[in-house]
Formats: sequence, C-alpha cells, structure tokens
Amino acid sequence: MSKKRVVIAGMGFGGLRAAKALAGSGFELLLVDRNNYHLFQPLLYQVATAGLEEEEIAYPLRGLVRGWKDTTFLLAEIIGINVADRTIRTDSEVISYDYLIIAAGSRTNYFGMDSVAKNAFDLKRLDQAEDLRNQILFMFERAERESDVRRREALLTFVIVGGGPTGVEFAGALRELIVYVLSKDHPTIASSETRIIIVEAANSLLTAMPDDLREYARLKLISMGVEVMLESKVIGATEESVQLFGGTTIGTHTLLWSAGVAAADLAGAIPGIERGGAGRIVVQPDLTIPGHPNVMVIGDMACCLTNGAPLPMMAPVASQQGEYAAQSIVARERGASLPAFRYRDKGAMATIGKSSAVAVTGGFKFRGYIAWLAWLLLHLFYLVGFRNRVVVMMNWTYAYWFQERQVRIITSKNRRSVRS
Amino acid sequence: MSKKRVVIAGMGFGGLRAAKALAGSGFELLLVDRNNYHLFQPLLYQVATAGLEEEEIAYPLRGLVRGWKDTTFLLAEIIGINVADRTIRTDSEVISYDYLIIAAGSRTNYFGMDSVAKNAFDLKRLDQAEDLRNQILFMFERAERESDVRRREALLTFVIVGGGPTGVEFAGALRELIVYVLSKDHPTIASSETRIIIVEAANSLLTAMPDDLREYARLKLISMGVEVMLESKVIGATEESVQLFGGTTIGTHTLLWSAGVAAADLAGAIPGIERGGAGRIVVQPDLTIPGHPNVMVIGDMACCLTNGAPLPMMAPVASQQGEYAAQSIVARERGASLPAFRYRDKGAMATIGKSSAVAVTGGFKFRGYIAWLAWLLLHLFYLVGFRNRVVVMMNWTYAYWFQERQVRIITSKNRRSVRS
Repeated sequence: MSKKRVVIAGMGFGGLRAAKALAGSGFELLLVDRNNYHLFQPLLYQVATAGLEEEEIAYPLRGLVRGWKDTTFLLAEIIGINVADRTIRTDSEVISYDYLIIAAGSRTNYFGMDSVAKNAFDLKRLDQAEDLRNQILFMFERAERESDVRRREALLTFVIVGGGPTGVEFAGALRELIVYVLSKDHPTIASSETRIIIVEAANSLLTAMPDDLREYARLKLISMGVEVMLESKVIGATEESVQLFGGTTIGTHTLLWSAGVAAADLAGAIPGIERGGAGRIVVQPDLTIPGHPNVMVIGDMACCLTNGAPLPMMAPVASQQGEYAAQSIVARERGASLPAFRYRDKGAMATIGKSSAVAVTGGFKFRGYIAWLAWLLLHLFYLVGFRNRVVVMMNWTYAYWFQERQVRIITSKNRRSVRS
Repeated sequence: MSKKRVVIAGMGFGGLRAAKALAGSGFELLLVDRNNYHLFQPLLYQVATAGLEEEEIAYPLRGLVRGWKDTTFLLAEIIGINVADRTIRTDSEVISYDYLIIAAGSRTNYFGMDSVAKNAFDLKRLDQAEDLRNQILFMFERAERESDVRRREALLTFVIVGGGPTGVEFAGALRELIVYVLSKDHPTIASSETRIIIVEAANSLLTAMPDDLREYARLKLISMGVEVMLESKVIGATEESVQLFGGTTIGTHTLLWSAGVAAADLAGAIPGIERGGAGRIVVQPDLTIPGHPNVMVIGDMACCLTNGAPLPMMAPVASQQGEYAAQSIVARERGASLPAFRYRDKGAMATIGKSSAVAVTGGFKFRGYIAWLAWLLLHLFYLVGFRNRVVVMMNWTYAYWFQERQVRIITSKNRRSVRS
C-alpha cells in the first residue's frame, strides 16, 4: 500500500510546524512555497532598519527538510485548489493530495485605498524590507543636498500607519538608527530635524496589551522622540504626502503601512467555500472546511471563531494550529479524532527600543529591561537554525555595544527604483 | 585662506586608498561614488555561490569617513568632467575642484558581442552577484521538475567564459556548492548530472601565473569535476545556449562572462583626452593627464605604460596608484614633485577550492594548502571593517567544518526576473 500524501501549502510558522510534526509519521509529505526559504517575519523590521541582514531571518527550506523522511519541497506558486478533485494546481503542474493543509498566510490590506497602496511601503516580504531600508538611507542622502526647507523636512519625515507591534517596533528601531547612526553619518542633518510619526486609528497603541503597558509604550516612544497620533485615520497618499481624516496633510516620502492584513489571495482560489472577515476561510472547530474533513486551514488564512471572535492573525496561533493539524491527521488515520482546537494564549510582547519592551504572559506584566531581555531570548530561541542565531546574536551585541549598524548599504538595483 | 578642494571620483580600491592618505592633510576632500558602499570585488564570486552575504563585502562609505577631517561623501553619478573649467558634473549639480583623482574603475567588455551581452551574467556589481546566485539556485529548482533529458542537462550546465582568477575561483566555488550543498538539497539531482565548463581563449588558465601553477590549477579543477576548454572562443549566445568558434554549441541557461573589462564609461565623458586599449585614459608617468597636472587617473581607468605595456587592471595597481596620487598632491602643494609612479608587483594568487590555491610572490611559488591559507588571511586582512572580518571568518569556518552554506535563498523579486 502506497503512503498517503499530505500537501502543505505555505511554509510560514503554521505550515512549517505542521510539516515538522508530520515528518516521519508514515505519510508522503509535499511542502509547497513560492519562496525557497522560511521567513522569520517578526524581525523584518530589523532588516528595514539596517540592523539585520536579509539572510539572517530567511532559512533555506531545503536545508531544513534535508533529513526528513519521505519529504519533498516544491518551489511553486499555487494558483488553484480543487477540493472536489483533491488536487492543487501550481503554475507548472497539477498535484493530487489525500490531505491538504492550507497555510499561505496573509497579505497587506489597504482597505481599498488605491492611493495608499500605490505609495506606501509594506513590511511583509523580504524584498519589501530591503526596499524600505534603501528608501530610508536614500532619503538622508537626498536631504543632504536639498536646500529647500519644506522639501528637506518632507524627506526627513517618516510616517507609520498602525500602532500594532510592527508599527511600534519599527518606529523605535528607526529612531535609534537615526539617533545613533544616521545623524553621525550625516553631520549636516540633526536628529531633531527628523520626524517619525505613528498614526493610529484607535485610542491607544498595542491594543492587545493591558492598559498600563500601552501607556508605557506610548510614553517611552514619545520620550525617544517619536510622535504618536491616536484616533487618526489615513485617507490617502501621494508620493510626497499623506492625508489624514479631518484635513491634515503631512509631507513625507516614506509611508509605512502596517494597519491591516487580509488572508492571502489563495483563499479566493477555492470555489464554494465560506469566507469571513479579511477574506479568511471559515473553518470548523477542528480547522477543517465544512464537508471536506481532509482539508484544513491554519494560521492567518483561517477564520477560527473562539468565544464568538476570530483568533488573531499572529505567529503563535499559526504554530499551534499547525501542530494541531498534524496531530489531527495522524489521529484520523488511526480512526480517532481530536477535540476541537483550543488556542493557548501564552501572551504577547513588543520591543520599543534598546533595553525597553513590554510583555504580558499568564497574567504577569513586564516592562523595561526585563521585558526586553525576555523578548531577545525568545526571538533568538525561535529563530530557525544554529548559525542564524549566532549571527543575529553577534549583530545585536555589536549594535548594543558599539551603537553601530553594519547593513546600511543602498543596494544599487533598488536605489534606481526608489521613488524620487 | 580657504582649503583647496580635492575631488575623488570613485571609491574602489584606488579612490579609497587615495582618500585615506589625503584625509587630514590640509585639503577639503569630496568623495563621490554612485554607491554608498565600498565593494570588495574580489569576493563577489562568493556572494554568487551562496558563501557570503552581500553586506559582508560591502562597507558603508559614510561609516568609513565619519571621523575624517574636512571630508564629505556625495552619493551621485558623475556624468561629465570639464578639465578646462575644473569642474565635474553629477546628475544633480556642478562641482569645482582644485585637484581631481579619477578612479571610476571598469565595466565588463563583451567586445561588441550583443547576443552575449544580452544573455550572459556578469560579476562586477553586488546586484549581479545576487542575480547569479538566484539563477544557480533556481536552475536546480527547475531541473527537479524537468523530465526532458536534454532540457534538464541545459539547466544543469554552467558555462564560465574566461579562465582568469574570477573564472577559476567562481568555477571552484560553484563546484563545491553543488557537491557539498545542492546535491544534498536536491536528492533527485546527482552531482554527476551537472556540468561546469570554463571556456578560455588562451592556451592556459591564469595567464599571469607561472607555468607550473597554471597547470596545477587546471589539473586541480579537472579533478574536482570542472571541464576546462582551452583555446576556445565564444562567438554568441542565446537564452539557452552558447556558441563557440568552430561550430560547437553548448546548451546552458547560465553563462558567466569574465573574459574582459574596459574602462568605465566615465572615461568617455572627458573631452579631448587620449585613450588607449580597453578605452583607458592614457596618463603620464606621474599619472596626470597631459596638460592638466591637477588631474590624475588611477586604477583600471588609467592606461599607465610600464616597460611598454599598460599595467594590469587589478586591485593592487589601483591601491598603489591611489597612494601615489595622494602623496603627489601633497608634494605639489609643497612645491615639490615625486618621481614617476612605479608599480611594485607583490605577486598574485587565486583560490581553487577548499584547501587549494596558487600564489606567487617575490619569486616564490606556493600551491595547495599553504597558498590557500595565505589567500584566506590576506583577504581577511584587506576586508574593510572589524565586523566584516569577523562575520566573514565565521561564515568561512562554518562552511569549512559543516560543508554547508547559509545564504542559498532565492530573493523573490529577482526570481521573477530570472530568465525562464
């Protein structure tokens, strides 16, 4: 009897965890991703702020699965899923499956604002982080030669839409890049000439955090020199400005959008399934699609209702669902079944700057140095691959002691494509 | 009295050396480059073979010049030089100088073969190294899914034109990447299915080396599985093949051209000066342009005749000329002058593979492990920046002991642009 084939679509946190748990458990495993690496997305903002190199947060998938039994990796874009035929279609072939785990993650959601989509930077992919890094460095180069006061101000203004972890962490890291590094690289530009503005629609930053930690983060950012605009909504953008609801316009060439995500486009490529908010696929309590017990959706793509609300789109949810999906398939093959998926909330954390972070776990709240240290160790722990950890640790140590960042090169190919 | 302004056009090995020597010696220094980093070109082939990350061989120029007195860096493309007016023109402004050092290096020379220029990969710039790395990795991904024997062979054939140091070092490093890493990443592709072919027009590799070292390099490469075709000339290429003089056609999607360089285009932007072979600017024995004692040309751009032949286009020549140019300007300001530039040939070296290299210096010849160790230490020594050295050393140690390469990620932006 030939082995049953499990196809996992997407090698993010969810897909990777499912693959690890299923490898060697009697299935033929086919892992599909459009990139040949697993991306450690939570640290993308450090690539964008010249703190880490791209390769340090991207781990080659073939290297990971090398020793795994009956496991194949396929570099391909999935363009259709046919749950009736039990096949997926890639850009080059059609592949059948016995079990399918859909884990293609999310894309940025501009909520239909085309002018923002066209002019904003984005922080979901590796090349986007590189683009943003090039942009930041290039704006300082341009500002050096700009004599018009207003235009110079716009070049040195950086607007971040969204006060979630990405926005907060990016803002803090950018501020430190400017104060410790760029102001020394550019003696004619004072740190005080630059502006970093977080624009957040809600009435606080980090809405997943307890009140006092939100406030701590806000005050800490302000003390670092970051402007925080709460209850403010972006309604449009041009190459040189961003418009807020109420009439305010801010001159900037660098607008980072981190205010919304939606399920990856693949969610729309499965005919006849129900989709919830942000285009996520509505799943049953066991993460399967109604009527198709051999198809599971996990991570950002899954709309998994818990106490009436969908689970948040974040790595821990994806990882736990990946583990569950794997166990569930193994159980089903033995004629058993698992109880419904239950998310174990282990807490949340966000780093704000050097020696400063907020964290909450199991009812305990931390902030400042201790939270920062916890953030650091946890991220190192979860980074895939021995060498990555060592190099990242080295970079961080170097940055910490020498207040220097190595990676501030403008890669020429992109400099040309940077808007000017 | 205001300080005299020295403009240095180009921050390669020559320009950087001149800048270092002139900093703090009473001039106003303006350093111009179109990139914001100094590139350690001799190690580009290691980026292309997934051994080093881009940032490890690119050092931010602003970081370098930070502490230097009266020194400014300008990120700009120089598009014209007017030696009569004593000005240079960039894409954004006109800058006057008292002294000018032209050090813009070289570009690849396809000798008018448009089909090769269009289809070949090139290894002069950082983005080209990344493109080539993406291409190599992507060819293995495609070969996995290719059932047609002939097409699969073409995907797995890599042709290198030019048997100089770049061609030899790239061929050896690519072979090791395939044998130690890619053949494990792709269990369905045997190393023996892949072909690496060096095509060289002369009757030996490494023509700057003594006879026995050339032969050692050739035999070593062959023992590693690299094919060496001597006295063979490329006359054309398509996306899927390369044509040799005599009628042979080799199926390949990956053609690296390392068979010729010419002076950078800037050499053509100075009206009324004499140019020699490969478009290099003919200089006097003191490296100045005839009639313009305040303009010096150094490095690959300079045609500096020594014993009737122009000096080779290589880093040591550029560095020594940079040092000379700086001293010469200082001397002139004191009313003195230097004797003619004299190149001190300190030897040459090329690495072939793990624990194997050839080197010649001061009449002594080395090969094998001792030459390889010397190559390694010398390259580490010349790498700019403490941190670069440490990280490069770490990468090399890791690759040596674990026979693994970390950087084998296909950056998505480029994968799409890779020819397919």
